[in-house]
Amino acid sequence: MSSRIEQLQALLEEPLLVTNLVNVLYLTGFDSSNAAMLVEPERVRLFTDFRYIETARAVEGVEVVQTTRSLVGWLSENLSGRFGFEANVLPWSFAEQLQKGGIELVPRQGLVEQLRGVKDDGELETFRRACAITDRMFERLVAEVAFVGRRERDVAWDITRLYHEEGADDVAFEAIVGSGPTGARPHARAGDRVIGTGELVVIDTGCNVGGYVSDYTRTLATGELDAEMRKAYDVVLAAQQAGLDAIRSGESGVDVDAAAREVIEGSAFAGTFGHGLGHGLGLDVHEAPRLSTESPDTLAAGNVVTVEPGVYLEGRFGIRIEDDVIVTEDGIENPVRFTKELLTVS
Amino acid sequence: MSSRIEQLQALLEEPLLVTNLVNVLYLTGFDSSNAAMLVEPERVRLFTDFRYIETARAVEGVEVVQTTRSLVGWLSENLSGRFGFEANVLPWSFAEQLQKGGIELVPRQGLVEQLRGVKDDGELETFRRACAITDRMFERLVAEVAFVGRRERDVAWDITRLYHEEGADDVAFEAIVGSGPTGARPHARAGDRVIGTGELVVIDTGCNVGGYVSDYTRTLATGELDAEMRKAYDVVLAAQQAGLDAIRSGESGVDVDAAAREVIEGSAFAGTFGHGLGHGLGLDVHEAPRLSTESPDTLAAGNVVTVEPGVYLEGRFGIRIEDDVIVTEDGIENPVRFTKELLTVS
Repeated sequence: MSSRIEQLQALLEEPLLVTNLVNVLYLTGFDSSNAAMLVEPERVRLFTDFRYIETARAVEGVEVVQTTRSLVGWLSENLSGRFGFEANVLPWSFAEQLQKGGIELVPRQGLVEQLRGVKDDGELETFRRACAITDRMFERLVAEVAFVGRRERDVAWDITRLYHEEGADDVAFEAIVGSGPTGARPHARAGDRVIGTGELVVIDTGCNVGGYVSDYTRTLATGELDAEMRKAYDVVLAAQQAGLDAIRSGESGVDVDAAAREVIEGSAFAGTFGHGLGHGLGLDVHEAPRLSTESPDTLAAGNVVTVEPGVYLEGRFGIRIEDDVIVTEDGIENPVRFTKELLTVS
Repeated sequence: MSSRIEQLQALLEEPLLVTNLVNVLYLTGFDSSNAAMLVEPERVRLFTDFRYIETARAVEGVEVVQTTRSLVGWLSENLSGRFGFEANVLPWSFAEQLQKGGIELVPRQGLVEQLRGVKDDGELETFRRACAITDRMFERLVAEVAFVGRRERDVAWDITRLYHEEGADDVAFEAIVGSGPTGARPHARAGDRVIGTGELVVIDTGCNVGGYVSDYTRTLATGELDAEMRKAYDVVLAAQQAGLDAIRSGESGVDVDAAAREVIEGSAFAGTFGHGLGHGLGLDVHEAPRLSTESPDTLAAGNVVTVEPGVYLEGRFGIRIEDDVIVTEDGIENPVRFTKELLTVS
């Protein structure tokens, strides 16, 4: 049986019904749009429907059970007992359906996520491969791709193409290419805006390799910048370094966020960094632990987190710089090789 | 104010808290990873955090309210009253958090989805554009792309590339390229299997144009097939035609499914069609109404549904043929032009 399932069993006060599909993937390697697990001390069942049943049967150490497409409906009719459930994932009506079927539910959350937060050697090796491909993508992006006069979405396509050519399985998410005022909207997609000269362009992108994702941001210049833009870039870069310097096992997500945030708050750009400093990275692009003013998390060796402060001046420009780092006992391993110097592209 | 919001208001027995992000997009055009709406008879609020606030302010006819990143936590502290909520979407723990904040919640489901199921002229026009691009992608796929000797995932990349070249915004989902025995797993992804000669290859793919998706399947031959494969192809084609012929406004999803299913059940391939006949298509790849043995839905003019019977022989091959059609008062409009004749590629 998978040691991940054994680790989970050791955490449980009662059997756990796992309905988060990424958690099912993490525990079994089984990737499906309709599945659940019931993890008991001496028995592990994997439920899925006809479409995935042949693939499920290849999973070792679990009993595979074929359900109808209405998986929760099927579970409510065929299970009984007292189970923990993933209360932060399972929709309210599904929990009610299970309860009406006579199942006693105990709300739990973060049990599998807690295991996922600490990566093992195999996961870290896969993550480093994703970073190496992302580095090569960025090297080629600034060397080969035209920016000025093209739409943001055209550059986003080049990013997708370069990842493919460099051997990524897929993009991790649709790349953000935010030029000029678009860059001031931290999560604007790549749109129809034509990139001009003398602008800042925020590129936030990652790839997926073997299920694990990278997530970098660099901000590029298209020609001569004004003094405020250059100053803002230096402030973000200093804030990012302060964040990186603050990370080690045992630090809180709040304190690491604060280390970077106070650099921006102590500058001419106070009040312009309106999001958290970073988030965990793994099978999901956003997972535990969080680095933010509201984070409940404490860092542990083996966590993988982004460090991505930004400055956003509405209607004018945005700047964000983001690395992905592995938390160690006394600091970090930063697998990101692509430069953070301000580069000019044309 | 948007007429979609007005239509929703007319359906409500109490104010509705909308937390399904696709429903927020449908009602407002606002696309975000962290948003909610409170739709009251005389007031509509749109909640989101800093990252999206600038984009949200462009939405007309709503009050935009900036929340923290913990949007539900913020709502639980700042709202009071009695609201419907999307019980099939909102996680159990979020509902509990709102209730603990003093909000009285009434479980509702399918209200916005019911509106989304009936497409307006603008939505249908966008959908037809997605189909036209998918037709061109398939024409070029069979004319230009090599299959035999290449991995399934290489063909999947060509599909992505062709969609881009033909003007799609994105793929609707990662293409399924299931060759030989892989095709017998209805939802297997494109993998590392090298496509051989004399095989069947299931290609299930769609694109996204202006937010709306297409979803086609064709099964191609790579050289001479055996008699059973050819016979199975004819059975699936006949079943698909029977399904298309059964569709009109007022028919039940169960009856349309049965019309196609009985063709397969009355053939030598009885028992090999283990999934539903089809599903609604729109902003999501799977939405209302469903065509299946378990469907609660009745078709209405303006629905867009897939019709996709299949035959799956474990360890050997799969065949599926899928069109996307618009339901009309007395039948269908089928915008899919790409042939359903058995094509041979090399």
